[in-house]
Amino acid sequence: MMSYERDAAAIYRQSFAIIRAEADLARFSALEEPVVVRMIHACGWVGLAEQIVLRGNVVEAARAALRQGVPVLCDARMVSEGITRARLPAHNPVLCWVDDPTVPALAQRLGTTRSAAAVTLWRPHLAGAVVAIGNAPTALFQLLEMLREPDCPRPSAIIGCPVGFVGAAESKEALLQADVAPALVVRGRWGGSAMTAAAVNALACEWEV
Amino acid sequence: MMSYERDAAAIYRQSFAIIRAEADLARFSALEEPVVVRMIHACGWVGLAEQIVLRGNVVEAARAALRQGVPVLCDARMVSEGITRARLPAHNPVLCWVDDPTVPALAQRLGTTRSAAAVTLWRPHLAGAVVAIGNAPTALFQLLEMLREPDCPRPSAIIGCPVGFVGAAESKEALLQADVAPALVVRGRWGGSAMTAAAVNALACEWEV
Repeated sequence: MMSYERDAAAIYRQSFAIIRAEADLARFSALEEPVVVRMIHACGWVGLAEQIVLRGNVVEAARAALRQGVPVLCDARMVSEGITRARLPAHNPVLCWVDDPTVPALAQRLGTTRSAAAVTLWRPHLAGAVVAIGNAPTALFQLLEMLREPDCPRPSAIIGCPVGFVGAAESKEALLQADVAPALVVRGRWGGSAMTAAAVNALACEWEV
Repeated sequence: MMSYERDAAAIYRQSFAIIRAEADLARFSALEEPVVVRMIHACGWVGLAEQIVLRGNVVEAARAALRQGVPVLCDARMVSEGITRARLPAHNPVLCWVDDPTVPALAQRLGTTRSAAAVTLWRPHLAGAVVAIGNAPTALFQLLEMLREPDCPRPSAIIGCPVGFVGAAESKEALLQADVAPALVVRGRWGGSAMTAAAVNALACEWEV
C-alpha cells in the first residue's frame, strides 16, 4: 500500500492548519476568516486571501438568510454541484437554470449568453436569496442590470466570483461600486466555481470538518 | 444598459487571444497548446502554463480514445458537470460514482475517502478510458494502487489535477513517476475541477469556440 493520508477529516484539518500557518488572514474578522480559509482550500493558493473583499457584513447576512431557508441561486452547474447539501441549515433549494431547455432561445432573444439569460429566470426567487456566481461575468452583469430596476427584489447576499479574461474583473468592480447587497468578491481575473461553492459551504454552517 | 461583451463566441475568442498574448506557451507542441490555453481560461491565470506537464503523447492518446467512444471517469461531480457533452466526439459516457449510495459504506470498509472508494468502482470501465481527476488526491493515489496490480485494466490517458494542501502535489508526482499511462498533470497545490474539465473539453474536439 502507498503511504498517504486516507482520513477525510484529518485531510481537512491538516489542510486548514497549513492555510492558517501560511496565509495572511489578519485583516479578516473572526466570522470572515473561516470563509476565506475554505475558499483558499478550494484553489490551493494562499495568495487568494489578498484578492478577497467582503462588504456589508456579508457573512452575517448570508448566514441569517440561509437559516431562514432562502434558496441559493447559482450561475453554473459546477457551482450548484459543489455545494454540500448536508451543510445547508434549512434544506435550502439550490437552483441553477443554465441547462433549462428554454434558455438557449431566451439567450438569443435577449442577445446575451445563456448564463445571463438564465439569471432572468431568478427574479421570482430573488427576494432574500443568496446568489452564487462563480463562472460567467455576463451573469453578474445581468443581475446588476436587474437590480437597477427599483421594483426588482433584492437578494440577501451576493457571492460574486466569476473567473476569466473578459469582463470578470469589471463585473466584480461593478458589483462593489453598485453596493446593492452585502457582497463577497474575488477581485481580478481569479474566481471560479470551486471557490464560489466553497464560500457557500463556509457560510452555510459553522463547523469546518 | 451596461456596456459589456454579451456574445459568448466573442468572449471565448477574446479570452483565448489574451491568453496567447500573455502566456509563455513556447514549450508546448501545436497539439498541446490549445489544451493548455483552455486550462488557463478556466482559472484566469496565465502562470498556470509553467505548472502543466504533458507526458506520453497524452493529447493524441486521449483524442484517439475518445473518438472510439471510451468513457470519461471523473472523481467529482464538479468535474463531470463541467464537461461539455456536445464537444464529446462519440456520445462518450461521463461517469462519476462519488454520490453513489453504496460509496459511504465502501469507504468505511476500505478505510479511505469516499472519492477513493468510488474509484474502485471504475475497474470494469477502466480499459482504454480517459480518467479525469480534479479534486481528490486520494482518488489519484487509489488509481495508482489499482494500476500496480498487473491484471488491472489500463486507461488510455490520465488527467491528474487534484488540488490542495495535503497529498495533491505528492499524488501528481507519484503519477509522473509511475508512468502507467499518458498523463496530463498540474504540478504542486494547483489543480481543481474547472481546469480538469477544461482539459477534457479541449481534448474532446479541436474547435475552440
